[in-house]
Amino acid sequence: MNVNGRHHRTIWLAPDGWSVEIIDQTKLPHAFVTATLSSAEAVAQAILMMQVRGAPLIGAAAAYGVCLALRQDASDTALERAVTLLAKQRPTAINLRWALQEMSDAVRRLSPGARVPAAYARAREICDADVETNRLIGAHGLKLIEDIAKRKRGRRVNILTHCNAGWLACVDWGTATSTIYQAHDKGVPLHVWVDETRPRNQGAALTAFELGAHGVPHTIVADNAGGHLMQRGDVDLVLVGADRVATNGDVANKIGTYLKALAARDNGVPFYVALPHSTIDWSLGDGTGIPIEERPADEVLVMRGRTRDRQVVEVEIGAPGSPAANPAFDVTPARLVTGLITERGVAPATSEGLMSLYPERLEQRSPGGQG
Amino acid sequence: MNVNGRHHRTIWLAPDGWSVEIIDQTKLPHAFVTATLSSAEAVAQAILMMQVRGAPLIGAAAAYGVCLALRQDASDTALERAVTLLAKQRPTAINLRWALQEMSDAVRRLSPGARVPAAYARAREICDADVETNRLIGAHGLKLIEDIAKRKRGRRVNILTHCNAGWLACVDWGTATSTIYQAHDKGVPLHVWVDETRPRNQGAALTAFELGAHGVPHTIVADNAGGHLMQRGDVDLVLVGADRVATNGDVANKIGTYLKALAARDNGVPFYVALPHSTIDWSLGDGTGIPIEERPADEVLVMRGRTRDRQVVEVEIGAPGSPAANPAFDVTPARLVTGLITERGVAPATSEGLMSLYPERLEQRSPGGQG
Repeated sequence: MNVNGRHHRTIWLAPDGWSVEIIDQTKLPHAFVTATLSSAEAVAQAILMMQVRGAPLIGAAAAYGVCLALRQDASDTALERAVTLLAKQRPTAINLRWALQEMSDAVRRLSPGARVPAAYARAREICDADVETNRLIGAHGLKLIEDIAKRKRGRRVNILTHCNAGWLACVDWGTATSTIYQAHDKGVPLHVWVDETRPRNQGAALTAFELGAHGVPHTIVADNAGGHLMQRGDVDLVLVGADRVATNGDVANKIGTYLKALAARDNGVPFYVALPHSTIDWSLGDGTGIPIEERPADEVLVMRGRTRDRQVVEVEIGAPGSPAANPAFDVTPARLVTGLITERGVAPATSEGLMSLYPERLEQRSPGGQG
Repeated sequence: MNVNGRHHRTIWLAPDGWSVEIIDQTKLPHAFVTATLSSAEAVAQAILMMQVRGAPLIGAAAAYGVCLALRQDASDTALERAVTLLAKQRPTAINLRWALQEMSDAVRRLSPGARVPAAYARAREICDADVETNRLIGAHGLKLIEDIAKRKRGRRVNILTHCNAGWLACVDWGTATSTIYQAHDKGVPLHVWVDETRPRNQGAALTAFELGAHGVPHTIVADNAGGHLMQRGDVDLVLVGADRVATNGDVANKIGTYLKALAARDNGVPFYVALPHSTIDWSLGDGTGIPIEERPADEVLVMRGRTRDRQVVEVEIGAPGSPAANPAFDVTPARLVTGLITERGVAPATSEGLMSLYPERLEQRSPGGQG
């Protein structure tokens, strides 16, 4: 998508042709800064520190991390070491493991000398496929918004979203926001309630930044507000992304998603989850097995922001001495999910729904098979 | 309660015997600062800016606001002007209107010359009654915690609370926290999950400060975390305050309370609301008529905190140019409330439940009567 009038992906090859450039998302929304990563270790650190974040993007970044590792040492040992290192940085989003599996599959049967170009080719394919996948997710989701717009006869469609399932979470387009951008570009009148998404503020900092840059009308609200907005009829659709989806349709996503799903159900508001196939964990029968990342307490207790004289500083916001806990994801039970939007279409959040989109999985499915 | 080893109420008469001192709650948790209010206008401003906040405390503050107004001019006109001014500062908490009605009732039939001492006497009574009321709320709620502790056989009772229904929201003790303090003081092992309570962070700033000062084990969490904590079995009881309760048991409280009530219901966790009689709006059949305050967008977009070099500064946290909305309360339907804890005991959140506690209201009740 465009930033300051210029098209960007979130990750791309540097002019040297081998190192990797990213948008440093920890600097947004106060500064648009890129960073260059030249080793698997640097990629691992960027994933851990959330300079790159969002399930699809950490998959893409990890793919390039394997390229950088192989460029230094193309042996089996180095490949295995890089995969292990990268996989352990974030536990919840399955896309990370999916991309590492794809990279291993692409190179491990090749001779060490042939691995580096093959790895770069596969990483590039993963990125390009992510862009096309997200474009298709948006095209399928578009109809949902158009149907609501038709029902509302010209009054704007109010969409609530949580966290950032935007182009910044992917290589381009976004998952949830792809639908929003495509509807907006088609002239459907819409407005987005952007959940702030504490503690890391991905909504206020990233989704609002994205939507503002694209000219989509939006309003930031505290995470606490969504239920009230639904009660008063100001939300027509909840649209979020996912970090891992089990085969029964249970959805792991940013902490707080479950609360919005409960409110949507209580108020008869449709609740949709947009995701690429790489977010589905075919090894999990339900969401109980999804590991929930526990992140540092300081993410809750310390806030980054910009002072009046435009200095970006960190400030302590809690009572001195009080501890904090920071579970980063929760699992929304499939019963609360109206539907899943993937690159293949929209389906119910059920085993049958997923199988209708991915019938080839019916044969492949076996316990622990594709995790 | 104690701060730095010395007992404080949240509001008291200054040594001059007529002006009013408060704890400036906008300065917490980074500084414990008191302020002196010498006019009704100053009290109105302190209520608006939330230097004093919490439904019972804004009632008590407004009572002293009437005293200060009458001290300058004890005429009917001045009384009416002060009541109008004070009432309009915060729309949701009914205690404000209740206290102003009490003050009017106490002085309006007196000659102007007799009004000032009568007003100060009634304001003092309102404050003293608030302390005793909250002590009783705690005593009634204590049994709920003790019952859970008995069931858990020595394992700590985990209580989740939202916003600050603590002594800082009242004159002393608190409503929800009165129960917590009394259980803790009695040796019941407990731990409190403190919702941060965006956008004004009353949980992280005030409730955590209170609990820490009293030595109650607690952990700050993002407002988003509560549902997940309940899903994993780490919450035994949700205990919150209220800003207004309708006669059917619908509860207006700080924005986000409704989301926690939904999660409690979904996970079989008891959800109790602690309140004094002055929080009940006997004129409302249900919660739909409760006005929801819309507060400034800057409360969402600008965060106050303390830098590493201990400067307290305000920082912008949202994407530059993005607007915000800030509804300050929501209404939790009575069907989600396990029970109401008042100074008279615990009752179901129903019309019958409230009437069982306040049978004298059966005769008095009339539409619009006691609003």
